[in-house]
Amino acid sequence: MLTNIKTPKVYDQVIEEIKNKIKNGEIKKGDKLPSEREMAESLGVSRTSVREALRALEVIGLVESRQGAGNYIRTNFNNSLFEPLSIMFMLQESSPKEMYDLRETLELQCAKLSAKNIEDNELELLTAILDRMYVAESEEESLELDIKFHYLLAKTSRNVLLINVVEVISQLMDEFIKKSRMQILHEGNTRENLLDIHENLVRALKCRDELKVSSAMKEHFDLIRKAYGY
Amino acid sequence: MLTNIKTPKVYDQVIEEIKNKIKNGEIKKGDKLPSEREMAESLGVSRTSVREALRALEVIGLVESRQGAGNYIRTNFNNSLFEPLSIMFMLQESSPKEMYDLRETLELQCAKLSAKNIEDNELELLTAILDRMYVAESEEESLELDIKFHYLLAKTSRNVLLINVVEVISQLMDEFIKKSRMQILHEGNTRENLLDIHENLVRALKCRDELKVSSAMKEHFDLIRKAYGY
Repeated sequence: MLTNIKTPKVYDQVIEEIKNKIKNGEIKKGDKLPSEREMAESLGVSRTSVREALRALEVIGLVESRQGAGNYIRTNFNNSLFEPLSIMFMLQESSPKEMYDLRETLELQCAKLSAKNIEDNELELLTAILDRMYVAESEEESLELDIKFHYLLAKTSRNVLLINVVEVISQLMDEFIKKSRMQILHEGNTRENLLDIHENLVRALKCRDELKVSSAMKEHFDLIRKAYGY
Repeated sequence: MLTNIKTPKVYDQVIEEIKNKIKNGEIKKGDKLPSEREMAESLGVSRTSVREALRALEVIGLVESRQGAGNYIRTNFNNSLFEPLSIMFMLQESSPKEMYDLRETLELQCAKLSAKNIEDNELELLTAILDRMYVAESEEESLELDIKFHYLLAKTSRNVLLINVVEVISQLMDEFIKKSRMQILHEGNTRENLLDIHENLVRALKCRDELKVSSAMKEHFDLIRKAYGY
């Protein structure tokens, strides 16, 4: 092995230290971290190694370094934090079936929660996306709107964990939506079938009826499932 | 703002560059990345910034730097990649209900897939964990076995994406299992009720019957749901 395994270990220790302090309630979002010197002493490692680990956490967007004031846990995490992971998900060489199973379960749960939690202005936004789907002039435009539709729907679940998970797999999700649209159209379905499915979802959401929304979402995934022959 | 926003931007560009190459099929796991000089030129930034971004990706475990040979996408991702994200999930101040909804949907899907995909030796391992649950002498020991049980079950789904998502939220998941056990026991249930639930799951899995497994898993989550009063 040519890899240097010393540094990742210090990084893991620093991460572990931060995690424990969060668990114990010592650190919250926006709070200051112990100084590099303190961390180095408590972990029994060099300050350089601690600094390097903190620098990596800063680059990926978990930690914010304020000049002369020390290191802080960011208040707002940016997308950078998700990116390395979304790359890892892309590289997993997962099958479309695996993505189907993950997406189905996440979106069905989102839809159920959305039935309860969606707000009027979000219903209007979804309707506006649907209206634009009807007049879209290319598959590229339809795809873009389809993707927007599903992220907005996830957001209206109001479950921050579900939303974040969908965000983490967004890279794969976009690809999957693209490919399943192609597969659905290839299997003899029309653009109208795809529009109906989304129309039904919006109608069910307008009733704020969990069962109707679930069944509309199941219909959506049945269309994908059949197109792939699962 | 005292934060330096220059560096995260280069990091984002480097990430974007890597992502595009993966999408186009130019890069796979284990492949060599373009040289720091090439990346710096194509992005129009300094080599120092590129090196810093790559160093961060190395520290979190996505990239491997081989002395004198350049940078490579790792073949096996280590857990470090999940850790910053699991911290972010911990800091989200999500409610137990949000975690309940996420965990329910993920575990129900895992269980359905496990019914089809579980192997004999995994059934034996699950049975062994269950046997140890019966003779556990403390709640601490029972909790540890309960957690092991659920991760093993997730693994037997054979869906690498689902397994990874469960891994990403593991920090919250461990806490949630701990708290829901406490809540279940506090609400007048006995240790036997908890043992029964897990026993039923193993029995259903042994039949490799998706419906039985689903219904056993639903029973499991009903117990949690009722204990929390959802």
